[in-house]
Amino acid sequence: MSRASFIITSIVWALSIICATAGYCDERQPIKLPNPQVDGGKPLMQVLRERSSSRSFSPEKLPAQILSNLLWAAFGINRQDTGKRTAPSAVNWQEIDIYVATAEGLYLYDAKTQALNPVFSGDIRKATGRQDFVREAPVNLIYVADFSRMGTAPKEDKELYSAADTGFISQNVYLYCASEGMATVVRGSIDKQSLAKTMKLRPDQKIILAQSVGYSKK
Amino acid sequence: MSRASFIITSIVWALSIICATAGYCDERQPIKLPNPQVDGGKPLMQVLRERSSSRSFSPEKLPAQILSNLLWAAFGINRQDTGKRTAPSAVNWQEIDIYVATAEGLYLYDAKTQALNPVFSGDIRKATGRQDFVREAPVNLIYVADFSRMGTAPKEDKELYSAADTGFISQNVYLYCASEGMATVVRGSIDKQSLAKTMKLRPDQKIILAQSVGYSKK
Repeated sequence: MSRASFIITSIVWALSIICATAGYCDERQPIKLPNPQVDGGKPLMQVLRERSSSRSFSPEKLPAQILSNLLWAAFGINRQDTGKRTAPSAVNWQEIDIYVATAEGLYLYDAKTQALNPVFSGDIRKATGRQDFVREAPVNLIYVADFSRMGTAPKEDKELYSAADTGFISQNVYLYCASEGMATVVRGSIDKQSLAKTMKLRPDQKIILAQSVGYSKK
Repeated sequence: MSRASFIITSIVWALSIICATAGYCDERQPIKLPNPQVDGGKPLMQVLRERSSSRSFSPEKLPAQILSNLLWAAFGINRQDTGKRTAPSAVNWQEIDIYVATAEGLYLYDAKTQALNPVFSGDIRKATGRQDFVREAPVNLIYVADFSRMGTAPKEDKELYSAADTGFISQNVYLYCASEGMATVVRGSIDKQSLAKTMKLRPDQKIILAQSVGYSKK
């Protein structure tokens, strides 16, 4: 190794350490989730009978397998040939992104690779809602619409469809949680301006709703 | 029977015949649906695997039992003690009404009595959407938000929550159809102003989306 390349390598390495320590690691590696278990679950009508909102969460973390199943149920790809998903979206825009806030960091769910792409490290859970329980829940999903994927539709259409499209996904999360005996609640009481800043969203990314997920407090 | 009461009874009877013939029977009796079958269905993950949109409908009508199950799955009461439902709603406003358009008439789903309350007779299915298939589908659901139930929330909040709340319900319909091998598609392409007039909605009732349901064309 030449002296110049040694110096460059050292600088890159040192910067990556500083980046990791400071919690601004936009270039961290994606976390591949286990393949989702797409069989099983309770019969649909029983799941619908047991669907409810719960605002009491144990701090117990979700195993990677459960998180993978949950995200696939929410808005995973259920038809590999077309890339279509478990929830519909207007004009198949697929404009809703699911951000995942845990104690470790903020991640973006990538349905194509069934992975969590790190946005940054650090615990922003309490910024995802006004209620106290949001900092207890091990996972807070934040549904963000990317208006840039919605073509030239008028603003009011983008708002209507992105809210409905979030509802489809969020109901899948409700039903997955009902099937697994887990706790969840969808939430609209969010300081969206402040959270968008914390999440470093672009102006055409709009926070629609958030949803806390975890195990019930015993 | 006195002569006076005979005449009055005859007039009422004659008017009811005229009313029924002319198709303006706002006072027709509610149609009690069979009790919903709240057990069974496919396992949730299989249902999610099979969820999709279909725009090809057989004209075959839905049996009353299937319609009852479908509406209960959509937004039925799953907790009798509190009147809470299979889908969440912001602040538990329960502001979304499901109107049911069939070849026979327009009905309003009453979750408390598991009945269809007739709005008027006559086939308005083709007015519920711009696509040709809407007149073929035996059932078109129209999701209507009653803004008067949403308190003093700002208009933009009412719009956001009523759209998301429609999404929760509509996804239940999707999953029920996937479980039963039925066809469905949610639709936003609606002449809302014209349909609201046809449905005789009040100004604070807002059409959010519609959804066609039926059996697949063979």
